[in-house]
Amino acid sequence: MDRIPVGILGATGMVGQMYITLLADHPWFRVGYVAASSRSAGKSYRDAAAGRWRLEAGWGAGVGDLAVEDANDLSRALSAHREGRCSFVFSALDMDKEKIRILEEAYAAAGIPVVSNASANRWGADIPMLIPEVNPRHTDLIPVQRKNHHWDRGFIVVKPNCSIQSYMIPLHALRQKGYDLKRILVTTMQAISGAGYPGVPGWDLVDNLIPFISGEEEKSEQEPLKIFGTIVDGAIVNAEEPKISAHCNRVPITDGHIACVSLEFGSQKPSVEEIKKIWADFTALPQEAGFPMAPEHPIVLQEEADRPQPRKDRNAGKGMAITLGRIRPCNVFDLRFTALSHNTIRGAAGGGILNAELLKYKGYLP
Amino acid sequence: MDRIPVGILGATGMVGQMYITLLADHPWFRVGYVAASSRSAGKSYRDAAAGRWRLEAGWGAGVGDLAVEDANDLSRALSAHREGRCSFVFSALDMDKEKIRILEEAYAAAGIPVVSNASANRWGADIPMLIPEVNPRHTDLIPVQRKNHHWDRGFIVVKPNCSIQSYMIPLHALRQKGYDLKRILVTTMQAISGAGYPGVPGWDLVDNLIPFISGEEEKSEQEPLKIFGTIVDGAIVNAEEPKISAHCNRVPITDGHIACVSLEFGSQKPSVEEIKKIWADFTALPQEAGFPMAPEHPIVLQEEADRPQPRKDRNAGKGMAITLGRIRPCNVFDLRFTALSHNTIRGAAGGGILNAELLKYKGYLP
Amino acid sequence: MDRIPVGILGATGMVGQMYITLLADHPWFRVGYVAASSRSAGKSYRDAAAGRWRLEAGWGAGVGDLAVEDANDLSRALSAHREGRCSFVFSALDMDKEKIRILEEAYAAAGIPVVSNASANRWGADIPMLIPEVNPRHTDLIPVQRKNHHWDRGFIVVKPNCSIQSYMIPLHALRQKGYDLKRILVTTMQAISGAGYPGVPGWDLVDNLIPFISGEEEKSEQEPLKIFGTIVDGAIVNAEEPKISAHCNRVPITDGHIACVSLEFGSQKPSVEEIKKIWADFTALPQEAGFPMAPEHPIVLQEEADRPQPRKDRNAGKGMAITLGRIRPCNVFDLRFTALSHNTIRGAAGGGILNAELLKYKGYLP
Amino acid sequence: MDRIPVGILGATGMVGQMYITLLADHPWFRVGYVAASSRSAGKSYRDAAAGRWRLEAGWGAGVGDLAVEDANDLSRALSAHREGRCSFVFSALDMDKEKIRILEEAYAAAGIPVVSNASANRWGADIPMLIPEVNPRHTDLIPVQRKNHHWDRGFIVVKPNCSIQSYMIPLHALRQKGYDLKRILVTTMQAISGAGYPGVPGWDLVDNLIPFISGEEEKSEQEPLKIFGTIVDGAIVNAEEPKISAHCNRVPITDGHIACVSLEFGSQKPSVEEIKKIWADFTALPQEAGFPMAPEHPIVLQEEADRPQPRKDRNAGKGMAITLGRIRPCNVFDLRFTALSHNTIRGAAGGGILNAELLKYKGYLP
Repeated sequence: MDRIPVGILGATGMVGQMYITLLADHPWFRVGYVAASSRSAGKSYRDAAAGRWRLEAGWGAGVGDLAVEDANDLSRALSAHREGRCSFVFSALDMDKEKIRILEEAYAAAGIPVVSNASANRWGADIPMLIPEVNPRHTDLIPVQRKNHHWDRGFIVVKPNCSIQSYMIPLHALRQKGYDLKRILVTTMQAISGAGYPGVPGWDLVDNLIPFISGEEEKSEQEPLKIFGTIVDGAIVNAEEPKISAHCNRVPITDGHIACVSLEFGSQKPSVEEIKKIWADFTALPQEAGFPMAPEHPIVLQEEADRPQPRKDRNAGKGMAITLGRIRPCNVFDLRFTALSHNTIRGAAGGGILNAELLKYKGYLP
Repeated sequence: MDRIPVGILGATGMVGQMYITLLADHPWFRVGYVAASSRSAGKSYRDAAAGRWRLEAGWGAGVGDLAVEDANDLSRALSAHREGRCSFVFSALDMDKEKIRILEEAYAAAGIPVVSNASANRWGADIPMLIPEVNPRHTDLIPVQRKNHHWDRGFIVVKPNCSIQSYMIPLHALRQKGYDLKRILVTTMQAISGAGYPGVPGWDLVDNLIPFISGEEEKSEQEPLKIFGTIVDGAIVNAEEPKISAHCNRVPITDGHIACVSLEFGSQKPSVEEIKKIWADFTALPQEAGFPMAPEHPIVLQEEADRPQPRKDRNAGKGMAITLGRIRPCNVFDLRFTALSHNTIRGAAGGGILNAELLKYKGYLP
Repeated sequence: MDRIPVGILGATGMVGQMYITLLADHPWFRVGYVAASSRSAGKSYRDAAAGRWRLEAGWGAGVGDLAVEDANDLSRALSAHREGRCSFVFSALDMDKEKIRILEEAYAAAGIPVVSNASANRWGADIPMLIPEVNPRHTDLIPVQRKNHHWDRGFIVVKPNCSIQSYMIPLHALRQKGYDLKRILVTTMQAISGAGYPGVPGWDLVDNLIPFISGEEEKSEQEPLKIFGTIVDGAIVNAEEPKISAHCNRVPITDGHIACVSLEFGSQKPSVEEIKKIWADFTALPQEAGFPMAPEHPIVLQEEADRPQPRKDRNAGKGMAITLGRIRPCNVFDLRFTALSHNTIRGAAGGGILNAELLKYKGYLP
Repeated sequence: MDRIPVGILGATGMVGQMYITLLADHPWFRVGYVAASSRSAGKSYRDAAAGRWRLEAGWGAGVGDLAVEDANDLSRALSAHREGRCSFVFSALDMDKEKIRILEEAYAAAGIPVVSNASANRWGADIPMLIPEVNPRHTDLIPVQRKNHHWDRGFIVVKPNCSIQSYMIPLHALRQKGYDLKRILVTTMQAISGAGYPGVPGWDLVDNLIPFISGEEEKSEQEPLKIFGTIVDGAIVNAEEPKISAHCNRVPITDGHIACVSLEFGSQKPSVEEIKKIWADFTALPQEAGFPMAPEHPIVLQEEADRPQPRKDRNAGKGMAITLGRIRPCNVFDLRFTALSHNTIRGAAGGGILNAELLKYKGYLP
C-alpha cells in the first residue's frame, strides 16, 4: 500500500513537531504537506524548524525539504490536495480559538478532512470527539455532519483534551462491563509540554508548581460526557454521568500527565481484584484491528507501590499506553487509583494519528 | 522574663535544625540542651552539625558550643533538667517508632515534659494531638495522662502530621461556625523536606514525581478525627466526621505542602462568599493571647487565580500562616480549594513551638 | 534625615520589583515615582503589578497606590522631579538597547540623575561602571560627563553585568594587595532570574541546562577591564589585564550565579593561605562608611568542601555578600575557586542601590 | 554466531541495570550470569531488582529468571564459567575500592576476563584504560599483564571515568592530526546518575547545584594522560601533556555530562574550520570494523548556538556519540567548546560493552 500523504497544520509547534516525528516511520501515512503561520511560510521545514525543534527524535525523509505554507491560505492546501500531496490534514493549530474553528471548517468545506487536536470544534453536536478504544462508533456522525454542512468529502473529527486521557480508557472499560460510574473526583499533575512552547516560564517551575491551568478543569469535567454520549437522531446526546470535579495543576515535569482519581460506582460495585482483571484484559478495536499506532496493551498495570511515575512510565506502549497504579479502595467513594498518560503522544499527536487510523479503517479516508 | 531553657531531641536532623533556627530569637524559650544519636554524642553542636546543616539560617548564640548528648541516655537529660538547662524537650527523633514511643514515655516518666513531632505517641487516648488554633482545650488531657501514668510533672503532647496542616485550620473555622463537614477528598503534593535528609533521592525527583508516601494517607485520614474529637471521661473520643480520603504525592519542591481539597458539607451549606469571610476573619487563642510564634492572620486568602504556589507563598506569616486560593464550588461536593502550608515550619518545628507556647500559656510548663 | 524620593524606570519587571522590595525599609531612599511601559501607564502600581509580581517579599507603604507613568514620557518624570517625588531614577528598563541609551541620556539631560542596571550606556568613556567596593573613584567621571554633555545636574552611572559580580570583588582584593592578574578562565552557571520574566521557558530547564546566554560572555570578558581601568584626561582607559575567557551557562536555579574561576597571577604569586586571609579581611568604602546596603563582610569564605551552593548561600549578607569556596591551587594556572553572588540583589537592584548610596555619600545626589 | 554469555558483577546497581538493558538485543553478547551483594544473592534477578529498577527500558529474555549470585563468591562464577554461562564479566561493582581491586584480580586469576567500570584497577601500569576510538592498541598490555601475574586466560581492562568521555575523543582526533595539546581548563556539569542510587539527595538538587564531586577532578586530570600514554617495555608511560585543570559540578539533570573546555595548542594551531572538519570526519576502529555498540559518527557537531543540551542531545548515536557545540576561539587559550556525553551509556555501560567488542575483535575473548 502506498502511504497516504497527509498535511500538518501548525507543523512548527510542539504538537506539530510530534506529528512529524511519529509519522516518520508510519506504515499508512506520510507527511506531504506542512503549514504554519505566515511567519514561517516560504521557508523549508528545515529552516522554519531551525532553533525551534524541541524534541529529541528527528523527522522523516524528505520532510526537511518541504516548503512550509501559510495555514491560513487554503488555496495552497487545495493545490496540494489536488496534486496528491495532502489527502487530509492533522490540525495542531495554535491561534485564536474562533479563528481555528472557522479555518478547520473551511478546510472541511473545501473537501479536506480535518483530524484536529484543537479544542475549537469539540462542541459541535455532529462532530465526533474520538478516543478509538472508547467511542469508535461516533464516527457515524461523519455522514450526518457532511449532510448538515452540505460537504461532500470533507469533515472534522476531534480528540479530547490531554488532561483526561489517562482515565477515560479505564473508565470506559468499567462501564463496558456494566458498572455505572456516578461521581469522580480527580486531581491532575500535568506536564509542561501540555502548555506548548514557550509555555510556562522556567521561573515559575523551579521549586514550585502552579495550581491552575486556564480552562482545563472545565474541559476535564465536560468532555467525558460527550465521549460517553450516544448518537440520537444524528446528534450526540451527552451522558449524564459520571459527574466529575477536577483540580488541575502544572508541575515541573517535561512530559506525562498524572491523575489521582477517586470514583463512585452505582449500585453494582466491582471488587479491586475484578477491576484489575478488567483493566489488564482490556483491548478494543484498535488492538483487534491492529492499528499501527495502537499499543498492544492499552492499559498497563503497575504493581509497585510508588508507580506510575512520569519519567519512568510515560513511554509505556511507545507513549500510547495508559499506566495505572495504586489501585485501592477509596475511603470516601469506592475506588481510587493513579493514572498516567504521555500527554504529547497519547494525549496529542499519537492520539490524533490513532484517530486517523480509525477513520482509514472505517473507510472515511481516501 | 528569663527565657526557659529547652532541649531538642534529634537536634541534628532536619526538623531539629529547624527548631534550632526558629528558637534563635524566641522571646520565651532558648535552646539549652541538644541530644541526638550516639554517633553525634560528645561533639559540640557545631561539630556535629558540620556538613549536615541543611538550612540557610543559622543558629542562636551559644548553641554551637553546646555538647551533643545521646538522646537515649536519659541520665544526661535529667542532669540538665536538674541543673536548669532543660525544662522540657522538643522531640524530633528519627528512629524506630516503637523506640521513640518508649523513649518519649521515659522522659515524661522522669518528669521532663515532651512536646513531640513524632508520630509514635499520636494515638494514646490521653495524649493531646494539638493545633493551638483548633483544639487548645485538649490540653485538659494532661492531668488525666499524668494520673493514668502516675507521672507528677512530665507529660507528652504531640502535633499531627504535616500533610494535614494546610486544611485543618480552615476546616475548623467552618465547623466552629456551625457547618458540618461530611466528606473530604484531598490530594496532596508534598515537599521533599518532609522526608528528612537524605530523604528522597535526586534521581527520583528530576522530571518526575512519586505518587506514594508510606503511611501518609492513613495519617491524613485518621488524625483529623482525633483533633476534632471531644474529651469524654478523660479520654479523646474521635469525631466521626468528616470522612476523608487522601492521595499523597511527593513532588520536586523543597518546602511547602499543597493540598487540593473537595469538601461536602452537611445540610447547612455556606456560600463561597461566606466561607471566604469566615476564613479571612478567623483568629483563635494563639492570636488573641499573642503567642510569639502565632501568625497575625492564621489564614491568608490569595485572590490571584494561580495561587497559592509553594515557593511564593510558603513563607506567609513567617511560615506559620496557611495560604488558601482557588476557593470555588465543587462540581461533585460543595466546595473546593487549594491550600498551602510550610511543612517544616507550621507543619513541624514551628507547630511544635506553638504547642509549647500554648502549654506555657496554660501553665503546664514551669 | 528625610528619605530621598526616587523613581524606578521599568518598575513592573523583575529587577524593578526587586528595587521596590529592597527599598521598602531603606533608611535613605523611598520610592516616590514608578514608570513602566505605556501598557501599564495610568494604573496604580498595585493593579499594574497584579498577576506579575514574582517575588515573595512585598513592597513599601504607599507604593501600591502610586500611579504608574509611561517611562518614555519624560514630562511626567520632570513634573515628579519638580514636585519632590523623584530626585533621581533607578533604570531597570527592558526594551531596545538603543532606545534605553537615548532615554537614559534624556533623563540626565533633563537634570535627573540615572543609576542604571541596563547595559546600554556601559561603554561611554565618561560613564562610570561602578562596584562601590572596587572602583568608587570612578565617580570622578561625573563632573567630566556633565561638562562633556553640558548637563548641569543630571548624569548617568551604570553597574556591570550580573555574571561578573561574584568574582570582581575578590579579584580587586588581590590586585589591591599588589598581585597582578594575568589571565582568567571562568565558567558560569547562571540562574533563571537573570533572564527576566518570562525569560527561559520551563520546557528548556527541566532535566536540562542551556550552554549559551546571548552577549553574556562578551560582557564578562570586557567589563572587568573598564572597572579596573584608570581615569586619564577625563576618560576611562581600560586595564589591559586580566585577559578573561568566559563560558556562560543557564541552569535550572531561581537565583544565584555560580562562577568556577581559574586564575593566573603575574610573577608575584600569593599562597592559598594568604589569599584566604586577604579575602576574609577585605572591606572597602561601603563597609567603612556604613552604607545601609553594604554587607558587613563583602566576602564570605565557606570552608565546607561542597559549598558555595546557590540555594543555601545566595542570601549571605542579605544577598549583598559574595560567597567563595573550594579555594585551591589550579593545575594549569595558579589558583582556582568557586564564587557565588545573588544575581538580582548584588547583581542587579541591590548593586544599583549601593551605587546610589555611594553617590549620595560623595555628594552627587541632592 | 552464538551470542557469548557474559556475567554482570553489581547487576542490581544503576550501571549494572544499564548493562542489562543495553545487552538485551546485543548481537554478540547475552547476559548469562548476574551477581550482586550477598543481600540479593539467592533471589531471581526479577525479585532482586523489584523496587530498585531505575530505568525506563526493560531487560532481555530470560534475565528476570536468572539467579542472583554473591559477587564475592568466586566459586559460583567459576561454575558458571565452566558451564558456559559466563565467558567473561563486566564489573560494575559498587563497594570499597580496595575490595574491588582485589576481587577483580581474583576473577582474572581464576581465568575470567574482567571488563571493568570501576576505578579500582585503573592505575596498574599493565592494565589498559580503554576508549576504543582512542587507544585500542593498549590492549597489547593484556599479554604483558598475564605474564606479570602468571595468569593464563584472565585479564583486566578498565574504562576511564565518565567525566572525561565527552572530550577525550575530540582531543584524540586533534592529536592524531598532529596538533599538540598543551593545556586544558575544563568545567563539568555532571548528571545525577553518575552518583549511582540513591546518590545525591533530592533536597540538594532542587533550586541548587553542588560545586564538588569527591575524587572527580583528580580523575579528570590524570586519566587522560594514561589514555594518551605509550607502551614502553610492557608498561604504560603516561603522556606529559595536556596539563588539565578540572572544576567538577553536580547539577539537577538525570543523564548527560556537559564539559566546557578551553584548550591551548602547541605551536601548530588549527583554525576553527579545520577543527570542525577534523571532528565531523573522525571515525576510528570501532566504526571501521563495525562494532555493534559503535555510533556511526562518534562526534556529532551541533551548529545551533545553544546546543548541546543534555536532555535533547544525550541520546545521539544511541547514547554512544559525543555531541559538540559552541566551537569558537578562546579569549585566553586557543579554542573553546562545549561537549556532551551520556554518562551511563558512553560513560559507563555502553563504554564497557564497546571495550568488550574491541577485545572480541582482537581475539582476547573466547
